[in-house]
Amino acid sequence: MTLSGVMQIGQEAVSGNSATITAVNPATGERLEPVYSGGSKTEVERACELADAAYGTYRETSLEERAVFLETVAAEIESIGDDLIERAMAETGLPRVRLEGERGRTCGQLRLFASVVRAGEWLDVRLDPALPERQPLPRVDLRQRHIPLGPVAVFGASNFPLAFSVAGGDTASALAAGCPVVVKGHSAHPGTSELVGRAVQTAVKACDLPEGVFSLLFGSGREIGQALVADPRIQAVGFTGSRAGGTALLATAQARPQPIPVYAEMSSINPVFLLPEALKTRGKAIAEGFVASLTMGAGQFCTNPGLVIGVKGEALDAFLAVAGDAVQKSAAQTMLTPGIHGAYQDGVGRLAGHAKVREVARGQAGEGPYECQAGLFAAAASDFLADDALQAEVFGASALVIECADGVEMQRVAESLEGQLTATLQMDDGDLDAARALLPTLELKAGRVLANGWPTGVEVCHAMVHGGPFPATSDSRTTSVGSAAIHRFLRPVCYQSLPQELLPEALKDGNPWGMSRLVNGKRKG
Amino acid sequence: MTLSGVMQIGQEAVSGNSATITAVNPATGERLEPVYSGGSKTEVERACELADAAYGTYRETSLEERAVFLETVAAEIESIGDDLIERAMAETGLPRVRLEGERGRTCGQLRLFASVVRAGEWLDVRLDPALPERQPLPRVDLRQRHIPLGPVAVFGASNFPLAFSVAGGDTASALAAGCPVVVKGHSAHPGTSELVGRAVQTAVKACDLPEGVFSLLFGSGREIGQALVADPRIQAVGFTGSRAGGTALLATAQARPQPIPVYAEMSSINPVFLLPEALKTRGKAIAEGFVASLTMGAGQFCTNPGLVIGVKGEALDAFLAVAGDAVQKSAAQTMLTPGIHGAYQDGVGRLAGHAKVREVARGQAGEGPYECQAGLFAAAASDFLADDALQAEVFGASALVIECADGVEMQRVAESLEGQLTATLQMDDGDLDAARALLPTLELKAGRVLANGWPTGVEVCHAMVHGGPFPATSDSRTTSVGSAAIHRFLRPVCYQSLPQELLPEALKDGNPWGMSRLVNGKRKG
Repeated sequence: MTLSGVMQIGQEAVSGNSATITAVNPATGERLEPVYSGGSKTEVERACELADAAYGTYRETSLEERAVFLETVAAEIESIGDDLIERAMAETGLPRVRLEGERGRTCGQLRLFASVVRAGEWLDVRLDPALPERQPLPRVDLRQRHIPLGPVAVFGASNFPLAFSVAGGDTASALAAGCPVVVKGHSAHPGTSELVGRAVQTAVKACDLPEGVFSLLFGSGREIGQALVADPRIQAVGFTGSRAGGTALLATAQARPQPIPVYAEMSSINPVFLLPEALKTRGKAIAEGFVASLTMGAGQFCTNPGLVIGVKGEALDAFLAVAGDAVQKSAAQTMLTPGIHGAYQDGVGRLAGHAKVREVARGQAGEGPYECQAGLFAAAASDFLADDALQAEVFGASALVIECADGVEMQRVAESLEGQLTATLQMDDGDLDAARALLPTLELKAGRVLANGWPTGVEVCHAMVHGGPFPATSDSRTTSVGSAAIHRFLRPVCYQSLPQELLPEALKDGNPWGMSRLVNGKRKG
Repeated sequence: MTLSGVMQIGQEAVSGNSATITAVNPATGERLEPVYSGGSKTEVERACELADAAYGTYRETSLEERAVFLETVAAEIESIGDDLIERAMAETGLPRVRLEGERGRTCGQLRLFASVVRAGEWLDVRLDPALPERQPLPRVDLRQRHIPLGPVAVFGASNFPLAFSVAGGDTASALAAGCPVVVKGHSAHPGTSELVGRAVQTAVKACDLPEGVFSLLFGSGREIGQALVADPRIQAVGFTGSRAGGTALLATAQARPQPIPVYAEMSSINPVFLLPEALKTRGKAIAEGFVASLTMGAGQFCTNPGLVIGVKGEALDAFLAVAGDAVQKSAAQTMLTPGIHGAYQDGVGRLAGHAKVREVARGQAGEGPYECQAGLFAAAASDFLADDALQAEVFGASALVIECADGVEMQRVAESLEGQLTATLQMDDGDLDAARALLPTLELKAGRVLANGWPTGVEVCHAMVHGGPFPATSDSRTTSVGSAAIHRFLRPVCYQSLPQELLPEALKDGNPWGMSRLVNGKRKG
């Protein structure tokens, strides 16, 4: 499939006039054709105008129409075939098997949202029928449903070029909610973005939807992203990326005459607590599992385990020895972009140069230009507690092991943590009391609490929470993975005494859509 | 019951050292004893510290314990008896029947939330059981529930001294969610606040809950409110009041190292659309209903109908004549505070002095110092569309009638509106097409859409939305009235592979709490 190097505004191919973007193969440093011309405010304006025009029609599509559209997007992505995988490999340095898996996840996610749309729980239908005889005052007829917020801006992430990018979780959940989407493609994988964008564009046409349901813009620097978030037609923002990037978008969104919600998934070091019995009994296996999770995908996951907390002693020393050995043997891996590699080098350098941190092990050095040489470091809990900078995320395969004097200090470390996406307990039956003591703190710090697993690997399902208190995300009340992600793009509307002819189908007498409804506060159907 | 003029921090009575607050009887201008000593940062610190300490225990109370607590608060408020009504009358100028009704609403609201707590829908329990045999990868066990955000700051509103104040909707829904509450009492009714605060305090003790579950602070000026919102232990804010006040709190909340959600219900002019058939057929009855809604409670409701839109012509002229006559005959009513009266006078003065606005009628002048003399004004739609200032809320019985050239201009007026709490259609069968054309716009502008009723009178039920796009509220995804208000104070947590012993009761195998659960995305029970 030939790449054209242009943006997609509705059904149109549009060439920009701003600074160009050229993808780089991070494995070789080679620049990849074609050159993408970046857009400007003009293209933002046009995409938002079309999105706004599409919103009225799109938001009132039937559940079946919308579900079929999401399924069509999935089918169109699959029909690109191997071209998509090869381009993504070249742009990201990620291996084939990982990208094939990610494509499966992306299409599975679109199909999950199709089923969520059909089930209609997201409409949160509530009926409080009129009570004309009620004393002292009658009650009028009141019905509620949720409606989509309006056009949504989505920022593609670099580390999941398919699952968190053009047709990733943010786009899928916003489209499922009934919101048109304007994507700002990530500059690290414009070719992959173009291919997926064209698949969505084709699906829009095949499903006879208004063209503004989807647009894809490119732009280097922050101009186009800031313009997108500031556009009065945009009503919500989905973002996965750095803390600096997320907070900048948040500031723009809050400074608008009409502030809008920003769902930014930003920064997490995903603490893992090694409880004493587990550490003593199976420290070696835990250390091996830990390093496998740490180094997977060069550690370029939001849920990478970057902090390990244990009680100082023989068992922890043994853990460190095994983990250090595994890290030392770990092969270098190509990182996603030169920028990420540079930031990783800086972060690891800061740890290595920190007076209170000791280097436990470094992985194998690489031969390519942008390879991640894994790092394992250690520090005393008292030093960790004294320096907030040691909580800064190092994006990539780098972890810090915190040595506590005892369980009390471990609890203190837990309490000192910023908000996280995940918190993990490595525990055995003998650790139940210790786990019970930590759990209330971990619930307050993280969106997901795990026992005896690793935080990498985020299941796309109904119970998933990929979210958490600030700075893990900008809105702890939400998740960006799983079916509940749809709620980010909805708001409730109440209809009082509306004639049947005017009521939305989901709210009409006789329940024509066969929805589960809350009637007088009791669930029906 | 003797008033003591002090704050309540947990179970302690605390006297402040900052500027004092003295309630004024707005009917007479008389200053009411006792003088309340305002608190400072010291008291904010202490209340937040206690709230934080109480949070761990309170958030894990059983559904039954928490429901009984809410019911006990209601019973304690009722047991104050007539002292509460008399003090509230003196502090607000509101009539007895209104305050008795409001007390009923307040206690009914607490009991509704008790039933909501027991039903447990708010926990949003989701289970995705492990699929060890799944290919290509097994699925781990994932379960989700919602947990309370943490201590909540609530700002009492002046216009509902019971239902939106110390133990009003924000407090009731936050306590129902499991959040301790620190109230900043409104300076207009400190005596009413003290009485209700003591009732909550007594209920906390009677239910053997940690004292920090509830505190009540006073303070003149903004210092104490800003300190409360800035306190790191506060995790969410409920506010009903002015746009200036709400946006100031929002700015403080967003500037924190960890930003928090603010639920501010601020400003709405509640447009009423007079559709042609209804206007022609029953314009007189509509005019009478309108003026009754407009002047009820001196117009001091968030949902007061401050904007009426019709098509210029005989029928609208007849409406204006009847409405003008009714306004002119309307008796003056005491307003809540000297400050509200002053702002009302300014707002009405701005309309009266506006070059493009004509005065249709003014109500009877009052004899007391702070009485509301209702105002009805009219302007051409073209002038309204040209001047955003005509959308500013005038809190009190004042309305502006917009004369449109035709239905197209009426649509344009609808599209020009800022976010609203409500939008109303006065319509007959012959207006169905016109209503259908307006409805999509109204849904985007308002949290509640009504037909043939009046927006004043907000039912406390499950389907209610008392919310809407900015500036009606700071978060259109929520409601501050009705059972769904509880969702403002919750966030999801996912538990992965946790042993049964560590899982919260609501998530355990066998469903010990008998909750409605979403299992693999399908509703069970």
